[in-house]
Amino acid sequence: MDSERYRRGWEVLRTLDEKQSEKVLAALREISPDFARYVVEFPFGDIYSRPGLDLKTRELAAVAALTALGYAGPQLKVHIGYALNVGCSREEVLEVIMQMAVYAGFPAALNGLYVAKEVFQQSREAGAAQK
Amino acid sequence: MDSERYRRGWEVLRTLDEKQSEKVLAALREISPDFARYVVEFPFGDIYSRPGLDLKTRELAAVAALTALGYAGPQLKVHIGYALNVGCSREEVLEVIMQMAVYAGFPAALNGLYVAKEVFQQSREAGAAQK
Amino acid sequence: MDSERYRRGWEVLRTLDEKQSEKVLAALREISPDFARYVVEFPFGDIYSRPGLDLKTRELAAVAALTALGYAGPQLKVHIGYALNVGCSREEVLEVIMQMAVYAGFPAALNGLYVAKEVFQQSREAGAAQK
Amino acid sequence: MDSERYRRGWEVLRTLDEKQSEKVLAALREISPDFARYVVEFPFGDIYSRPGLDLKTRELAAVAALTALGYAGPQLKVHIGYALNVGCSREEVLEVIMQMAVYAGFPAALNGLYVAKEVFQQSREAGAAQK
Amino acid sequence: MDSERYRRGWEVLRTLDEKQSEKVLAALREISPDFARYVVEFPFGDIYSRPGLDLKTRELAAVAALTALGYAGPQLKVHIGYALNVGCSREEVLEVIMQMAVYAGFPAALNGLYVAKEVFQQSREAGAAQK
Amino acid sequence: MDSERYRRGWEVLRTLDEKQSEKVLAALREISPDFARYVVEFPFGDIYSRPGLDLKTRELAAVAALTALGYAGPQLKVHIGYALNVGCSREEVLEVIMQMAVYAGFPAALNGLYVAKEVFQQSREAGAAQK
Repeated sequence: MDSERYRRGWEVLRTLDEKQSEKVLAALREISPDFARYVVEFPFGDIYSRPGLDLKTRELAAVAALTALGYAGPQLKVHIGYALNVGCSREEVLEVIMQMAVYAGFPAALNGLYVAKEVFQQSREAGAAQK
Repeated sequence: MDSERYRRGWEVLRTLDEKQSEKVLAALREISPDFARYVVEFPFGDIYSRPGLDLKTRELAAVAALTALGYAGPQLKVHIGYALNVGCSREEVLEVIMQMAVYAGFPAALNGLYVAKEVFQQSREAGAAQK
Repeated sequence: MDSERYRRGWEVLRTLDEKQSEKVLAALREISPDFARYVVEFPFGDIYSRPGLDLKTRELAAVAALTALGYAGPQLKVHIGYALNVGCSREEVLEVIMQMAVYAGFPAALNGLYVAKEVFQQSREAGAAQK
Repeated sequence: MDSERYRRGWEVLRTLDEKQSEKVLAALREISPDFARYVVEFPFGDIYSRPGLDLKTRELAAVAALTALGYAGPQLKVHIGYALNVGCSREEVLEVIMQMAVYAGFPAALNGLYVAKEVFQQSREAGAAQK
Repeated sequence: MDSERYRRGWEVLRTLDEKQSEKVLAALREISPDFARYVVEFPFGDIYSRPGLDLKTRELAAVAALTALGYAGPQLKVHIGYALNVGCSREEVLEVIMQMAVYAGFPAALNGLYVAKEVFQQSREAGAAQK
Repeated sequence: MDSERYRRGWEVLRTLDEKQSEKVLAALREISPDFARYVVEFPFGDIYSRPGLDLKTRELAAVAALTALGYAGPQLKVHIGYALNVGCSREEVLEVIMQMAVYAGFPAALNGLYVAKEVFQQSREAGAAQK
């Protein structure tokens, strides 16, 4: 019955980063296959697939929120990768994270910047390894 | 010395909504003139005036963060107004707020939607009053 | 397509409190009919309707989380009502709220207790009015 | 058995503001007499009565934390009153609240400043009424 | 004087998991023996030992709150262990954590699920080692 | 133009701990030189250099807020070091952290105590190494 929502959500996750999304879902399925399904269906099948906001803007909003929460490092890491994959520049990602100092304080922004640093480094190394 | 930052910040605040910004700052000056100055200088003079992210995207990031925090209703109200003024559609504002259910839960998103409802109503009434 | 999830979610909401749930959804539909639908489908259609935890325990977990968040007064109010309706005693609700002083501090617990006081008073008055 | 802790805690609360403390506890007793007792015993009987930090510093730490939490307006109001009563100046209270913009963001600091404004006004009016 | 509360709190902690509780308290005593005593006296001696809520329900409320806070991984780990020891099933623990996606968002729930995965694995290994 | 604020902020950071501050800023410059400048200018150049609160009290307020936030371990670590350097005793630092159990709950306070334990150990080892 819900296969349409799942299919739609997975389409979004493939666009964001197929390999990374599969990795996240595989790890999650080991503890709860149902919750892995919900992650595809609600955030991506229901919300991200809505018209009215492009994926680039959705990912910058995700980076904003995950930085502001302060404790969502692992999810911020994934979404910075997604943001870069759908066309956000590193500069745009850093601008959003820095802006969070205004709303959520410097510690949240600093934690966010260090996550970005790690993601940027890994994507540089991955790029170098491919050559 | 800092007049350049203040001038830059105020220029941003005028673009966002001169009348509303003056109202916020006037209320703040009654309790702390210095803090009113910092609000112009750091968030708007330093951060918002940076190149690399347009005002529309900055305001959607603000709406994201202020919704996710859950307790920032008064500031969310002001920034939804700013967002609309710099060209965000109501739909875009609502999309960002709804997306926050994913990262910060339904209560934060619901509180955000009710703030948006209030702002939309007031801007409708203000529009009607002008006719 | 999703009608099965909606139907399941609404069944749960009817069990929790049909009149109150309809009131919440009607207010929400005025700002976003889609989000009103998601509220029925994901929290209640997907999560609450799962076996493995009865509604009483789910509502005590909701009271715990909504108290601990500190800013979710309106949602806590609704869920305390739901908790009483599915058989939690006032004592159980108060015990969970008081326990939150341990994990989230006294201000969150105090805010929660005042919400409970308000709900208990209203249900007493509603009870008196029916006689 | 615990009367010694209660006695110690109440002694601290009397020093902070006897009338205000009695008012807070009376309101709390209506919903939970036991929790009213815990509020006296743990925060004030155990923690505040410890040597190693004077009441003035404890109240500035309370103002810092309650501002940073963002949702603790009612408790912040009480503790700003306590802070002034044990010798903190208005300036010191404002300085601590403003500093919270750094750690918890501008919205938390702004909400805190408006609470301080309200407390300062009421104490001015109370002072005027006594003449 | 307080020995009765301490005795009562320690009785609860022994029931929850004597070995684990002693380990937590021993680590805490190295930095603050007084705070180690408060942990026994207030959360467990005052709150957990109250009638009106059984230990199983208290531990599910603890799992709910500690998951919703997002940053309380180390404490969540201990309380998932306690929950299992007093008769909660793994399924019940997972249900409560998943439900937190509704109130506190998916990142908090995901962090909680990974903590549960770790606890379940360690208890499996401990079980295997005993044979 | 802003050199005066930067100079003032750096003067504060040197007083707090020159070596540690330089280390923090160097790491931050690798990801965002501009943000490293803002950290000097706003928190330390604007806020900390204000009269009305001495550095000792500012650092205890910082310890209070960073503990209460729950997720700001790396920043808490730096500020506990700063607090000790400007004359706060270990006892005062521990008292503030323990007091946070009241406002933000035991998990935040426990996380804070373990950060303090780590800082105290490192400063002991550094002291021993100098002999």
